[in-house]
Order: sequence, then structure tokens, then C-alpha cells
Amino acid sequence: MAVPDASLETIDTICNNAWKAFHEFRLLSLKQRAGFMRAIAAKLDKAPAALLQTAMEETHLSEARLRLEKTRTVFQLTSYADACERGNWLDVRIDTAKTDRSPATPDLRKTMTPLGPVVVFGASNFPFAYSTPGGDTACALAAGCPVIVKGHPAHAATSQMVADLILEAARETGMPEHVFAHVHGSSFEVGKALVTHPRVKAVGFTGSFAGGKQLWDWANARPEPIPVFAEMGSVNPVFLFPEKLKQSSKEIAGMYVESVTTSVGQFCTNPGLIIGVEGNELDNFIEMLGEGIAATPAAPMLHPGIAKAYAEKRQTALSQDSVTEVAESRNSTAQAEGIATIATAPGAAFLSNSVLHQEVFGPYSIVVRCRDLEEMMQIVTRLEGQLTASLMATENDVLQNPALVEAIKNIAGRFVMNGVPTGVTVALSMHHGGPFPATTDSRFSAVGADGIKRLARPVSFQNWPDSLLPDELKNKNILNIWRTVNDELSKESL
Amino acid sequence: MAVPDASLETIDTICNNAWKAFHEFRLLSLKQRAGFMRAIAAKLDKAPAALLQTAMEETHLSEARLRLEKTRTVFQLTSYADACERGNWLDVRIDTAKTDRSPATPDLRKTMTPLGPVVVFGASNFPFAYSTPGGDTACALAAGCPVIVKGHPAHAATSQMVADLILEAARETGMPEHVFAHVHGSSFEVGKALVTHPRVKAVGFTGSFAGGKQLWDWANARPEPIPVFAEMGSVNPVFLFPEKLKQSSKEIAGMYVESVTTSVGQFCTNPGLIIGVEGNELDNFIEMLGEGIAATPAAPMLHPGIAKAYAEKRQTALSQDSVTEVAESRNSTAQAEGIATIATAPGAAFLSNSVLHQEVFGPYSIVVRCRDLEEMMQIVTRLEGQLTASLMATENDVLQNPALVEAIKNIAGRFVMNGVPTGVTVALSMHHGGPFPATTDSRFSAVGADGIKRLARPVSFQNWPDSLLPDELKNKNILNIWRTVNDELSKESL
Repeated sequence: MAVPDASLETIDTICNNAWKAFHEFRLLSLKQRAGFMRAIAAKLDKAPAALLQTAMEETHLSEARLRLEKTRTVFQLTSYADACERGNWLDVRIDTAKTDRSPATPDLRKTMTPLGPVVVFGASNFPFAYSTPGGDTACALAAGCPVIVKGHPAHAATSQMVADLILEAARETGMPEHVFAHVHGSSFEVGKALVTHPRVKAVGFTGSFAGGKQLWDWANARPEPIPVFAEMGSVNPVFLFPEKLKQSSKEIAGMYVESVTTSVGQFCTNPGLIIGVEGNELDNFIEMLGEGIAATPAAPMLHPGIAKAYAEKRQTALSQDSVTEVAESRNSTAQAEGIATIATAPGAAFLSNSVLHQEVFGPYSIVVRCRDLEEMMQIVTRLEGQLTASLMATENDVLQNPALVEAIKNIAGRFVMNGVPTGVTVALSMHHGGPFPATTDSRFSAVGADGIKRLARPVSFQNWPDSLLPDELKNKNILNIWRTVNDELSKESL
Repeated sequence: MAVPDASLETIDTICNNAWKAFHEFRLLSLKQRAGFMRAIAAKLDKAPAALLQTAMEETHLSEARLRLEKTRTVFQLTSYADACERGNWLDVRIDTAKTDRSPATPDLRKTMTPLGPVVVFGASNFPFAYSTPGGDTACALAAGCPVIVKGHPAHAATSQMVADLILEAARETGMPEHVFAHVHGSSFEVGKALVTHPRVKAVGFTGSFAGGKQLWDWANARPEPIPVFAEMGSVNPVFLFPEKLKQSSKEIAGMYVESVTTSVGQFCTNPGLIIGVEGNELDNFIEMLGEGIAATPAAPMLHPGIAKAYAEKRQTALSQDSVTEVAESRNSTAQAEGIATIATAPGAAFLSNSVLHQEVFGPYSIVVRCRDLEEMMQIVTRLEGQLTASLMATENDVLQNPALVEAIKNIAGRFVMNGVPTGVTVALSMHHGGPFPATTDSRFSAVGADGIKRLARPVSFQNWPDSLLPDELKNKNILNIWRTVNDELSKESL
């Protein structure tokens, strides 16, 4: 669907309206916010078949994959709604007045308050889970922030259909007008106008490094800078330890053929870099990986922009000295731009050529052959921040290489043992984030209900009478939430 | 004490050494980190009298004030050490594998890992509590980060004496070499070299807006940007509600004479702006406040730079059209540059002249006379982000003005009811922070053990065998900490 960009006037009106809505929305109870989120989930769950059909046409993703993603999005909305209502994310701390101390200390009670209107940029690779009704939107609503979604132009019709569902849910649950808005835009101007609008107080983004860094730079150049939570590039290194590789090279190759190619490799957690120590086992592994890739048909990518970038970056990577192509998938049709590819290069080449460190977004992975584990250690210390790092290792491998394992544990946000980085579980225990350039703030997660904390800030109430405090801070624990009272966690009333 | 600036070579060596220390220090147990912090506290507590004497000479603060600040600093170190060891700040979340779900979910366990070496800039107004052994240092050590302190040049000798104590404590508790370092520097070059060094991963700063914003800009311009937690300016507005003012104008005036002048007004929480509705009660209040100020002797300020800035900003503020000086303190000696001052201006003048919104760091406060509560509301919505906002209000005042009270609750990090903003309690329930420009990140506190979270990031372990997990994530709850297991808080072992 080709839709015109929103005008700057429209954007100004939308942001000002979101600011008005903010003053009503943040006063609603956790239960009311959760009710709105559950209503969105219900509408998405029962959405007419036309929604999936439209998403399939716009993204070229399979029906099975999109159905799974829609289910995941419904789960995100309902599980974050549950977390919102459970209230533990408020991190309530209460310290009662201590008159016996010198100096005496006042009654102090801390909770969270929302930042303000949040702009969410839809991601091309997740039309549901990281777009209009996705994780950032769910976190913002849970935190008490109105949301303005800029739909991704590659799935503008899908985005508009979902936005209409959200607006319906807002009306039906009696939410303040303008608690949610949706704009179209494919130009830089639309993005810049949203991020630099004085009434916007935070930004959520999932996509390329270039895109995320640009939003972040705009946000930091504002008279009042605002946080941008951008989840950007990652090559998600996989480390093959010797004993494990010896035991299971076939099994690992099978796992990684699937991980590299699933959804045409269009995942931020796609394993783009596999690192092992040269030898027969690694050669066998590379051969099996190549066979699996060659047997995988090429497939259409999300949109022409991504296909073009993939073709270019793949070509650049393959044309580097000392990079050898191992195998590529059969390219059956002209639309099947997602040619899965395995390349290989020696460790020394990787160390001396930073082009090989760059993400090739799509079904591409390079296997780096290190001289020894010492060279692997050198590579680890040269890698940029990552969303994930995976270890294929036996317990012996880990125990015999403590320094290497510790170094790996310093570069990423999630450490996978004997598995693949693709497949991001929606749970409180998930950290989907990592040091720059994986994200703009390694201290927060884009997946899981802890993501709500990105969009709220703590506030303390000093010496307030009980009746005027927010419910979660009153003496009586009305909401039945866990609170830290005089340094001890408790559900008791005071 | 005039000391030469550290050379750029020295700084480079120190940062590289801190990076080496990081890899050992972060592996130490919470108990070991806490032991180091307690050893620093003990040494500071028993420091020879020369330390206080030196601090008095360098800062012109009274012995009583400095003694209190030293006690506060010891309390910070020991209470953050307790919090570090208690381990709740790790926010451990465990989700066990669910094979009955579609898709099945893996075992996932989340804890915190330190960011890396932290540079702490000493604050001129708190030679102990926000300098060398202060809150930022304590939080960094608790998080597992080595610390590099840049001593404030105005109390370089005090800073060096304390640094020596910390180094002694590090040796005696067997800490890794270079876990702590101290550099001198009064030039921009030293600050810039520290903030832009690739091995430095975070910055703590307490001071002026110009200083904090500069560090933040440098940090954001790095190839790998890093978080700067800068606690900067604030005018800490005080709102006088009508019924309360009628009942207690004398009491309020007395409170605020002390709050404006204590430690010569050199607190980031100093009440620089008092807002009321014009009328007899406000006139009486202003008169009484003026009398109290006039009866307060002027006093020497921290250092010539602050005295000069105070003189200039005070002069600028007083020379604005429609600003009237109400009273100033007796200036007995030439060294007593801290002339406490009360000025007043009509609400309309405040709304039209942004100079009146600016902080005058020192014992200065302006009383703004609004036409009515509607004008007060206009002022609230025009104020920038603040550390604190204080309400002098009866319960009736609050209940009758819900929109005004809610608007006030949107601009600051701490809301004081019928008290003064000065006096920042060290407790988990304290939020010492606020929207920009009060700080560079409203989501974190510079006071209280929650400040540890500024300097650590979450990491998830997926599918790791129990024996290889960090202690806090093992099935057996060895550390006896609160953990969220399958969405429920618990101290049970799995």
C-alpha cells in the first residue's frame, strides 16, 4: 500500500494531542491500563483473515510464521498486562520516618511515573511483534505513556489495520482520546519531526544501526534530550569449543542451517559469525553446514530495500581477500533474493579486516577458522557489543577455558549454551539488549515485561499524608503488591 | 593545594590498568566487594583529624557540617555495602524450561553484570559524600566496576588524602591492583581524556549544568557512546498553597530561612524559587523571610569560582526589570561572599523572562507572586525538569486543586510535603534525580542503593548447566536472596 507521508502539521497536532492524553492516561489505575492492553490482544487474536493475508502480501513471510508472530504478540500484550497489574515493576520502596536517627529521617516512599508520549517506530521484520501492537507499544501503555506509532512503510496496510483495532479497543475500554495514534511516513522528515517534537518524551525503535543511531542523535541534540531505546545491529557470534565440536559437529551444523535460514535470516539474533579452531572437525562442520545451506531454497525478502542491502553487503563481504564462499542456496526465481550463504575466512583475516565484523542482515554467516583458542580470545576482545553470544561447549570446555568464557560473557546481553540465538522467549528472565552498538542503552531489555521500566521514572514522596499518596504507596497494601519496606520485601500493610 | 594536572599519558595508563582490574574485580563475590567498601568506611571513620582540618581549609565549610558529611559518607558506604551483599539489586529472574508450550521455552536466568571502569568527578560542594569516597564511587564498587576519581581541584588535598585511604583499604582487603585510581586535573583536557578513553564505560558527575552537559556531549560523540550520570542544576520550586500559607506563614518562613542559607546555600536541592498567590499572607511571608535572611550573616563560599559565579548570577537576576530585592544578609568581611538574598517578582514577569527560571547556585531565592492559582499552573507547566518540588499545603489545598498538584508531580523526582527540599536522606526509597536538565537520565537515582543499577546491565543465561551459572542463578539459593522464579518472588531453592 502506497500512502502519503503525514504532514508536519498533522504530526504537530498528534504530538500535542498525545500530551493532553498523557495527563489523563497516567492517572488511570494499573488495572485500567491492563484492561486496555487485554482488549487490544483480544481484537488482534480474533482479527479477520484479511489481516494475515495483507501481512503475507506485504512482507513475503509465510502464513505459519505470521500466525506464530501474531500469537506471540497477543501473548506479549496479555503477559505485559498481567505484569503491569501485578505492579512489581513499580519497585515500590517505603522507608518510614526514623526519629531516633541523627539526623532524623522523614517518611519516604518511591514508585514509578510514566515519561510521557512515546514514539514507536515499526520494524520491517516483525509486522506484529515489534511494530504497531508490539513490545514497545505494550511497554509504553503499561507504563502509562500514550503511544504514537510510525508504521513501517513496507507493511503500511497491515499497520493501519492493526492501528484501527487498537483505536477500537481504546474506545471500548473508555481510554482517554488520543491515547494512541498512528502515522505513515517513509521520509526522514517524518521521523525527525516525531523525535524532535517537544511533547514526545521517549522513542522505541528496532531496526538498522544507521536508522537507530540517527534517531538517537536527533534525540540527543534536542534542547531537552530524551531516551531512545534503539535495538540495532548484531552479528551474534557463536563459539565452537573443541570437545563439543568433536562430539557433535553434525548436530550443530543441522541446528545452525535452520537458525541461519529461518525467516530468510531476517532476525536481529541471526547467527552471522561462527568461530572455531581449524582442524578436521571444523572442516567437517563447514562442509555439513554448506550442504544444508545449498539444500535450502532461496526465498523472497521482506522488501526491496532489505533485499538490495543484503545483495550489496553480501557481495562486499564475499569480495574481501581471504574470504571464501562455501555454499549458497538454490536461487529458483528472480523474486527469491534471499540467497542463503556460508563463507569462511582465517582468524588472522578477521582480525585485520573490520569489514568482516559487520552485520549482513539476511541469511548469511561466516565461519572463522582460528589458529588456536588464543586467537579466538583475540577475536572476542575485538568484537563490538552484541545482543547474544552462543557457546557450543561441554562442561570441560568451559572449565578448561575460564578466561575465554569470561571474555565472551562481557560482550553480549544473552549467553546461549548449546543452542541457537534465534528464538527470543517472552519472559521476565529474557534480556534482549546488549552493549552498543547492539542497543543504545545496555541497561534495558526490549523483550519481557522488564521493558516497561524503559518508559517510566522513579519518584519519591516525602512526608505525604497517607490519604494523598498513590494507591501503591499507601499504608494499606491495597494492590497486594510486593514492596520493599524498611529494606525488607513484604506484602504486608504498614 | 596546587597540584599539576595528570598528563594524557598517565590518564591512558590509568584507564588501561582499570580495564585490566575490571576483569578480576567483577569476578569477586558480592561479599568481597562489600568487604572492600566496609574497609573504606572504617578508614574514613577513623581518619586522623588532619583530614577534617584540610577539608575545612579547602572548602570553608564548618567542622560540624564536614563531620556530619563524613558520617553520612561512612553510612553510604556501609549501607550500599549491605545492599550489595543482600543482592536484591541483581533483580534475579528465573524462568524454568517449559516444554508444554508452543514453541517450547528454554531455561532462562537473568542477573546483572558491571559496565566496566567508571570515572567519577568529585563535586566541589561535597568533599566526601559526592567526591572521592562518595555515592558514585560506592555504587560503582558495589556494581563491580573499578573506579577512577578525578578529584575536584578546589579540595585536591582532601581528595588525595581520602584516595590514599581507599588504596590502603584495597591492599588490605586483597583487591585487584588498580581497582581504584585518583587523578588531579583542573583543565578541560583531563576531563575529556577520561570521558573519551575507550576503556572507560560510564561516568558519574555532580555539579553545574555546563559541566555535566559537556561530559555528556563528549560521551555521546564517542564511537562507542557511554552513559553519563550527571546530576546538574535545579531551582527546586516550592509551592505555597493558600490555606496552608494562611495557617502557617511564620513557620514556613522560618523553615525556609534555614533551608536557603544552610551551608551557604550550596546544595543542589536549595530552594531557589518560591511561588505563592499575592495577598496579605504572601506579603507577610515575604517580610518574615526577609527578616530572617537579613539576620543571617554572610559567609565564605566553597571556592573563588563558585563565589564569582554567585556574584554574577545574583547580580543578573536582581537587575531584571520587575525583580525587587527584599533583603540580604549582613556582609561582615571581604571573604564572606555568600550574601544570602531574597528577591521577589510578579508571576507575569516570571512567565515572560526565562532569566528568572535559572539557578543562582548559592543562598538566593526568589518569591514569585502569582495573580491566582491559574497563573501558578501556567508557571508549573513552563518549568524545566527539577530534582525536587515542595508543596506547602493542607489536605484541603491538595483536594481542591487536583490538576495543579498533578502538574507539579510531573516535573520533579521528589515531592516534599510541608517540608524543605534540602536534606537528602540516604535510603532505598530516595529518588535523587529528575527530568532533564536536573539530570541526564531521569530513570536513575544518585542517592540510595538503587544507584548501583546505573552502573550494571542485565544479562541472561539460556540453557546453562547449574554448575556453570553464577551463584545467584544456581538452583540452590546459596546467597539467600529474593529471586523472581516463574513470575513469583521467592527465597526458595529450585
